[in-house]
Amino acid sequence: MTELREWLEDTFYALNLTDKENIHKGFSRLGYTKEEAAAHNQFLKIADGLGLNTYRDEIGNQWAVWEVDKSKKTIAMGSHLDTVYNGGGYDGVAGILCALASIKMLMDKKVKPNRNVAIICFASEESARFGISTIGSKGITGQLDKDKIADIGDKDEMTIKQAIEEFGLSWNDIENAELPTDKIESFLELHIEQGNILQEKHADIGIVNGVARPIRFVVKVRGQANHTGTTPMNKRRDALVEAAPLISFINNEAQKVYESSSLVATVSTLKLTPNAMNIIPGEVELGIDIRSVKDQVKHDFAAKFKAFCSETEKENNVTIDIHTLVDDQSITLDNKLQNKLLKAAQKEGLKTLKMDSGAGHDVMNMAQKWPSGLIFIPCKDGISHHPEEYTSLDHLVKGSQVLQRFLEEELNHNPIK
Amino acid sequence: MTELREWLEDTFYALNLTDKENIHKGFSRLGYTKEEAAAHNQFLKIADGLGLNTYRDEIGNQWAVWEVDKSKKTIAMGSHLDTVYNGGGYDGVAGILCALASIKMLMDKKVKPNRNVAIICFASEESARFGISTIGSKGITGQLDKDKIADIGDKDEMTIKQAIEEFGLSWNDIENAELPTDKIESFLELHIEQGNILQEKHADIGIVNGVARPIRFVVKVRGQANHTGTTPMNKRRDALVEAAPLISFINNEAQKVYESSSLVATVSTLKLTPNAMNIIPGEVELGIDIRSVKDQVKHDFAAKFKAFCSETEKENNVTIDIHTLVDDQSITLDNKLQNKLLKAAQKEGLKTLKMDSGAGHDVMNMAQKWPSGLIFIPCKDGISHHPEEYTSLDHLVKGSQVLQRFLEEELNHNPIK
Repeated sequence: MTELREWLEDTFYALNLTDKENIHKGFSRLGYTKEEAAAHNQFLKIADGLGLNTYRDEIGNQWAVWEVDKSKKTIAMGSHLDTVYNGGGYDGVAGILCALASIKMLMDKKVKPNRNVAIICFASEESARFGISTIGSKGITGQLDKDKIADIGDKDEMTIKQAIEEFGLSWNDIENAELPTDKIESFLELHIEQGNILQEKHADIGIVNGVARPIRFVVKVRGQANHTGTTPMNKRRDALVEAAPLISFINNEAQKVYESSSLVATVSTLKLTPNAMNIIPGEVELGIDIRSVKDQVKHDFAAKFKAFCSETEKENNVTIDIHTLVDDQSITLDNKLQNKLLKAAQKEGLKTLKMDSGAGHDVMNMAQKWPSGLIFIPCKDGISHHPEEYTSLDHLVKGSQVLQRFLEEELNHNPIK
Repeated sequence: MTELREWLEDTFYALNLTDKENIHKGFSRLGYTKEEAAAHNQFLKIADGLGLNTYRDEIGNQWAVWEVDKSKKTIAMGSHLDTVYNGGGYDGVAGILCALASIKMLMDKKVKPNRNVAIICFASEESARFGISTIGSKGITGQLDKDKIADIGDKDEMTIKQAIEEFGLSWNDIENAELPTDKIESFLELHIEQGNILQEKHADIGIVNGVARPIRFVVKVRGQANHTGTTPMNKRRDALVEAAPLISFINNEAQKVYESSSLVATVSTLKLTPNAMNIIPGEVELGIDIRSVKDQVKHDFAAKFKAFCSETEKENNVTIDIHTLVDDQSITLDNKLQNKLLKAAQKEGLKTLKMDSGAGHDVMNMAQKWPSGLIFIPCKDGISHHPEEYTSLDHLVKGSQVLQRFLEEELNHNPIK
């Protein structure tokens, strides 16, 4: 066990390209950047060390396969190595790390698998760069609308298309990343919870049932830019003044329904134009993220917000345009797989909890094509997407144990179905 | 008069480096950029055409002098050619244009001046780029604190020092731009009103008494960045949610006192961090601009705002830091000069109005060293700092007439004092 702990620790720092001193400084390893590529390269080196077959697919996912027979099905595990701006070292990395560890543990035990086991490092899981999440897993499940996303730009106005080409891929070929259904048997993701339910309940492992997927709006409030010193207070059309109550509304209304519906809603981005000290704001663009595993609750909330915007528009001399960026149905994960994971965790003597996920993960795309499961391990105080994000080595060991036990049970039996 | 109108029109487009079709597309001719330099070059060409002596001083102001005798005093006029982001073609340009026209008119009338007349194109009047206004006129009046401003950056993190060096100037020499008091006799600026008082009162010319100077705050609200999907509504420290009521407070309180005190206040800039769709805002930086010609009113308002921030800080789990960027006393302009301008305008048969200025101008720096005056001409609907900023050729003619009449009277008499 000491050896495993050391291996996990070393591999954790290797995947993050950092060391113990610097791990809490945070990472901005955005999707399709050279920083993400560097982490993928670290993954390749580690997988090579384990004797796995490695390759990159057409959308930039990095694969490592413990290959028995190409004609056989594959049990896949995976997560991602990209981060948000100034994110932590565990979101995504924990899943890749425990998947690698589970294979290493099976190899150390001389288990001979009867089918293939793959680990997938999904490209660009976070929406931080382009406002679109899980690009890699959308790619292999055929959920990318190439023409629709090609020209979406990052904050430096580089488009997805350009970024993917700079990543060394061919834009024309990205659709070829889509996999036939019979290629994969089942898919498993392990992830830090990014909340504090497991910590509060002193549980080791969360077995996820539902994944909440967001409605996302881009809301443009348009007033009139003018001079701050010479425009009378009663003749202004200040877009920021009209946007402020929208921010308060989203928060206040979500507070009201949170307890009963676990809906969360956030105004998470704001762009002000012209954003100069002596000019009244002429335009404000808000990015709004609304989530609940209950789709109806999500839609009711969205409708309420839209009605509030209409009122604001009528009462004040501004226009408000609401563009729906994303409106995806929430996901329920495979029930059989949930039970298998529960048993695997219990066999390892771990305390488990059935729960939902407020965050989206690559698994939600995979679940639309293959039986899929999601395991949570606790993270400290629920802090995530932040340099202080942390989970202990103990939790990483336990996560690896569950994956290893699950695989061992599966590989000794016939495929599902 | 037709000839003058044509000359004004041609010269107006020349100074803006544009034509009739494109004038309403707006300009981003920021201070110390190649765009400002290009406009200064246009000014030099026009001044050369009039036979004026031209040179650039150490802070980048462009001078054009109708020189009689170097040992004699100079009556100076001036304004600026830089703009805000996406500004109009009249703010600053109108003053330079009418000053040029007034000299041309005197020359056409074969007036022989008994002292020098100068036009100064002040560098970087707008605060749009560095958050600091009127750099050129601060330079010649000895109001620049070189060490304090050197490292202030623009949005691309270029510092003032770098920008000034790129403008072809030497940072070490900028203090040499300061002029001795006996160099200039009086200073006059003409500017579009940037408000709609003249238009509403059907007046041709505003004679300005007081110039309101702003208090400017940079307010940092710090909460805690976290995942938008997994952080419960009741465990958030969302910096934007706490900043929204500050925006509303500034507007609502200013509305209350506007009528009685002509105070205006604006949250004009906002920077959100990390500003990503799936992360709760961890930090918000607001830029606030508060103006009134009555300094006490301004300070009372600022104190009220600070108290509100303290309350917000106590009641919510955020910190709020307030940094005072600027707190300048308002300016009262020279009374004798106001009367002379009034008479000049009346002799030209124009309807005048005594008024205050809510906007700052280079004249407020000049007024601290020399008897100075400010003339407003109307602009359409008070729109300024916007591509739709507009004043008619008629107003430009009338403005030129007042300057010309004032100069003619002055140049036929002995110097003031």
